[in-house]
Amino acid sequence: MKLTFEHQELLKSVNIAMKAVSSKTTMPILECILIDASADQIRFISNDMELGIETIAEGTIIERGMVALHAKTFSEIIRRLPASTVTIETNENYLTRITCEKAKFDIPGQAGDTFAYLPIVERNASVSITQFTLRQMINQTIFSTAANETNKIMTGELFEMNSGNLRIVALDGHRIAIRMQELGADVENRRVIIPGKTLQELSRIIDGGLEDPVTIYFSDNHVIFEFDQTMVLSRLIDGEYFSVDQMLSNDYETKVSIQKQELINCINRASLLVRESDKMPVILNIGENTMQLSINTAIGSMDEAMDIEMEGKDIRIGFNPKFLLDALRVIDDEVVTMYFIGPVAPCYIRDEEGKYNYIVLPVNIAR
Amino acid sequence: MKLTFEHQELLKSVNIAMKAVSSKTTMPILECILIDASADQIRFISNDMELGIETIAEGTIIERGMVALHAKTFSEIIRRLPASTVTIETNENYLTRITCEKAKFDIPGQAGDTFAYLPIVERNASVSITQFTLRQMINQTIFSTAANETNKIMTGELFEMNSGNLRIVALDGHRIAIRMQELGADVENRRVIIPGKTLQELSRIIDGGLEDPVTIYFSDNHVIFEFDQTMVLSRLIDGEYFSVDQMLSNDYETKVSIQKQELINCINRASLLVRESDKMPVILNIGENTMQLSINTAIGSMDEAMDIEMEGKDIRIGFNPKFLLDALRVIDDEVVTMYFIGPVAPCYIRDEEGKYNYIVLPVNIAR
Repeated sequence: MKLTFEHQELLKSVNIAMKAVSSKTTMPILECILIDASADQIRFISNDMELGIETIAEGTIIERGMVALHAKTFSEIIRRLPASTVTIETNENYLTRITCEKAKFDIPGQAGDTFAYLPIVERNASVSITQFTLRQMINQTIFSTAANETNKIMTGELFEMNSGNLRIVALDGHRIAIRMQELGADVENRRVIIPGKTLQELSRIIDGGLEDPVTIYFSDNHVIFEFDQTMVLSRLIDGEYFSVDQMLSNDYETKVSIQKQELINCINRASLLVRESDKMPVILNIGENTMQLSINTAIGSMDEAMDIEMEGKDIRIGFNPKFLLDALRVIDDEVVTMYFIGPVAPCYIRDEEGKYNYIVLPVNIAR
Repeated sequence: MKLTFEHQELLKSVNIAMKAVSSKTTMPILECILIDASADQIRFISNDMELGIETIAEGTIIERGMVALHAKTFSEIIRRLPASTVTIETNENYLTRITCEKAKFDIPGQAGDTFAYLPIVERNASVSITQFTLRQMINQTIFSTAANETNKIMTGELFEMNSGNLRIVALDGHRIAIRMQELGADVENRRVIIPGKTLQELSRIIDGGLEDPVTIYFSDNHVIFEFDQTMVLSRLIDGEYFSVDQMLSNDYETKVSIQKQELINCINRASLLVRESDKMPVILNIGENTMQLSINTAIGSMDEAMDIEMEGKDIRIGFNPKFLLDALRVIDDEVVTMYFIGPVAPCYIRDEEGKYNYIVLPVNIAR
């Protein structure tokens, strides 16, 4: 095999393929990127058995072939080469020579046929969305997935297509994040659970063009995201997702509108008195068009008042400051509206149009 | 005690004082910053028993007094306050209230008299140097001090005043870094060993004005750096520093001039094939106005040729790539000159004027 690339194109493709390389694995071949130039295109393929990526690299095939290279070594070499033409050439023992200007690297490779190819997935149903919107929807919900695997379903996000809308839901038992987007197309109703890790890596690859589309294909066990010259394939998580609709309510006793950045700064200041070990809540005291935020920990105490617009009853309610911050940080609106039902009921941070809804359970402060 | 500050001034003083706060200590009072407003000025004092800092903060004393506050908590609070007037007020139990706009913090404080004050040091001899030059000289040598305490003297830097010159020397057994500067003044001859940690923190505080002076005072056991409104005091390291003069030589068999950045990029590329565990050297093969750099490790091999100007004999010599990189990165010149005596003798990277001299021991590659 002998290929040439412009450095920048090569680096772009390597960076994309790196996103599905296992860092911890018992199968050394999964630490590799497969360069497949056995046909008319150069494909970089990586696969950690849950997530797989195939991307077409712009380059010239001088001699066809394929080789699996240790991904970390390969990517570090490419990253540090000068911005010039790069040649990748393998001999019959898969020893691979990478040359660029006067620099010359030799690294061992493996036969391509030992590589775990991506499964062939039937592409029946599909939806299309812009890269910008998909990335935004992922980033605005992903923090609410559960980090540990105790409940596998909570580590994923629900993608729900219903009546032409896409709704993404993430929850971890303490909070729920919901983002809704009209797809404006005739979309088949469907519910799938996509691993959080897949979505995280995906959001790092799609470069977020306002007009550039991503096409999402679904099969029974897989989802495929196709965009530009790249395909990201992932297993789905088995199981039935939680019914969140029964937790949604439009009733409220108290409605508060507040400057988002001011609230973020205030919760940030309160958070610095919280150490990992003691999970002290921030207490919101709402009344007379003022929200007083206070916290009292072993380190010290803090309180601060903010002007708000309010409707309804006064309320005193406590929250884990991190859960409020996580939601507030991803909301684009400058003024946010919070709805409260009572001191032991969840708080809803949502917009009028139903594009987002962040539901946070309170902490019991009735002591 | 009751004081007011503009936020920016307060933050500046807190950041300076934080540099001498112990993070690991069995004496909780050393985790504190002392605010001393018992006289006409507001002083922030910190002390980790080896390094001490005293800085005058711009602010208004409404009521005199002093208090020791937990440095980390205090600095985090100040950092996150809005840019407005900050009031710090203590009650008779040293409970300290920090207010800024509508934010109000209460944190516990301690009586100032439990604090370990800085020792009073007799200021006999002194030299003056600009902040810019001192910081540069520290940064251009500090990496050659030893990280571990096996040999205490190697963790410090020699400051040697001789015939109106300041020479700073750092060495760790594998390499030596020397920086020389004319002080252009009638300076008393003197040799002291200053702890590396002191110099590292100092270089982070002095903001490097080309014209702003630092005055350095010496006593038998201490050194004091005085600049702007700040005093940094440090113990000296006891003992006799190594005589480096006998290791300096102007003889050479091979002299090489090379583009510094090109050499750095090339060694960087070679380094990525080196893992922590196997300390493989880079091999320089010098001859016919070419330097060929090569490395061969378990990960792969690399070689690259660079154009050089040379005088003298051909040579083949091996080095730890990190030691070459550390020196090359801090040299300002675009073209550097390297002098070799033989494959088992040190290499010298030095300028014509004798301002810098980096001496690196080779690795034995005669295998």
